[in-house]
Amino acid sequence: MAGMRPIGVFDSGVGGLTVVRALSGRLPGEEIVYFGDTARVPYGTKSAQLVIKYSMQIARFLQKFEVKLIVVACNTASALALDYLADSLPIPVVGVIVPGAEAACRMTGTSRVGVIGTPSTVRSRAYEREIKRIDPRVDVTSAACPLFVPIVEAGYSKHPAARLIAEDHLKPVLDAGIDTLVLGCTHYPLLKGLISDVAGDSVTLVDSGEAAAEAVERALEQCGLAESGGKPRHRFYSSDTDSVTVEVARRFLGVPVEFELVEIERY
Amino acid sequence: MAGMRPIGVFDSGVGGLTVVRALSGRLPGEEIVYFGDTARVPYGTKSAQLVIKYSMQIARFLQKFEVKLIVVACNTASALALDYLADSLPIPVVGVIVPGAEAACRMTGTSRVGVIGTPSTVRSRAYEREIKRIDPRVDVTSAACPLFVPIVEAGYSKHPAARLIAEDHLKPVLDAGIDTLVLGCTHYPLLKGLISDVAGDSVTLVDSGEAAAEAVERALEQCGLAESGGKPRHRFYSSDTDSVTVEVARRFLGVPVEFELVEIERY
Repeated sequence: MAGMRPIGVFDSGVGGLTVVRALSGRLPGEEIVYFGDTARVPYGTKSAQLVIKYSMQIARFLQKFEVKLIVVACNTASALALDYLADSLPIPVVGVIVPGAEAACRMTGTSRVGVIGTPSTVRSRAYEREIKRIDPRVDVTSAACPLFVPIVEAGYSKHPAARLIAEDHLKPVLDAGIDTLVLGCTHYPLLKGLISDVAGDSVTLVDSGEAAAEAVERALEQCGLAESGGKPRHRFYSSDTDSVTVEVARRFLGVPVEFELVEIERY
Repeated sequence: MAGMRPIGVFDSGVGGLTVVRALSGRLPGEEIVYFGDTARVPYGTKSAQLVIKYSMQIARFLQKFEVKLIVVACNTASALALDYLADSLPIPVVGVIVPGAEAACRMTGTSRVGVIGTPSTVRSRAYEREIKRIDPRVDVTSAACPLFVPIVEAGYSKHPAARLIAEDHLKPVLDAGIDTLVLGCTHYPLLKGLISDVAGDSVTLVDSGEAAAEAVERALEQCGLAESGGKPRHRFYSSDTDSVTVEVARRFLGVPVEFELVEIERY
């Protein structure tokens, strides 16, 4: 019966819908409750203390649905709040950083891995630390890509300026001669084509959302919590609603999505 | 004695520091208390209800300093919360939209005015409505520029991609044959050179922050609240602190700035 409980997924905004997409592709029988903190997005510019506070509020909200596992789809929250959440909650908590780091270590042949993310994710060195913990021999080069999220949200992924910016943003990792590149941000799967074009055939991209979905599958199997039957009806909540967000959300999830409003500060 | 009370200025983030810069250039004797809502930035993607709630919290915080006037340096808050603030507070409240609209109507020779801003400012049609109210004969063309704020914050103002994006963002207003362009966002003064280059000599730029500073000067004189003596020491508060924000803040204000943390949700 425990298997019939939903999976909770949260992100600072709608970017985590790429993780929902990966999850429902891999685990089509699992019901998902998603929360996007659209009133307080972005987390990347916020302090660790604040990100932990917000993450705990969201976890308390998700627990109302008796979720059996929580996926922290937000890189910033995964870097800053995962340990706190895992210690505080009685259910498994899966972030995007450990799975992304593990996948990179598995895939690299030359032990030269690149990581791209928002300035705050890169500054946190969370991927770097995790990769080094798994395999100290791996060389990690990180690059902050401050304009990738705005480009995706503005719908400029195919504009010539996006290519110029991608060449600029990716230069530090490509100069380091990497063979594997971790997409350390939920928005980046929407730039896969561009990034892959600029990086060239010799570089394998690791989508940390896909890696997280794989980790969720393993965790559910290990705990005997997997659910394979039925046609689940996912539910989507957010802390603020706005027409543009809904349009961007559709792009991320691949299908239209409607959010229900939650006063998250109350949790 | 009333003149010695400070002016309160607030914005959703640090962009409002360009308004502080304009204010202290024009009114060097006035003391300023600034609040940047860096924990909850941006306002542009938030609902009117939420922006009003946040603006009132900030106004209550600023009233602790017995401010004699409040400048709403944020375009979104000026569009959505100004009337509510003006009705609720016993002091004058000056936004950036009315002064910007007035300056544009004064400056245009051809009665063709352009307005650029964030998607939410443009969607609100606040400048358009205000310009039409002042002079119904003026033709207004607006263009949302979703990537200008990220470009400024990432320090990409001089990158070749910025020019491509500017050409793209400004096309609708330039195609309309405007002679006056309102910079309807606190970040845009940092792109003045680029915007002016792309727009050409025939277009006059209206900096709505400068226009707001002028309006503040007039309001203080009218109310007998002007202060000209002394060397005021400005104070800067924010709802979250972060190293990048401070670096960007320095760029906006022109001099280094240190923020003191405020738990704004308490107000």
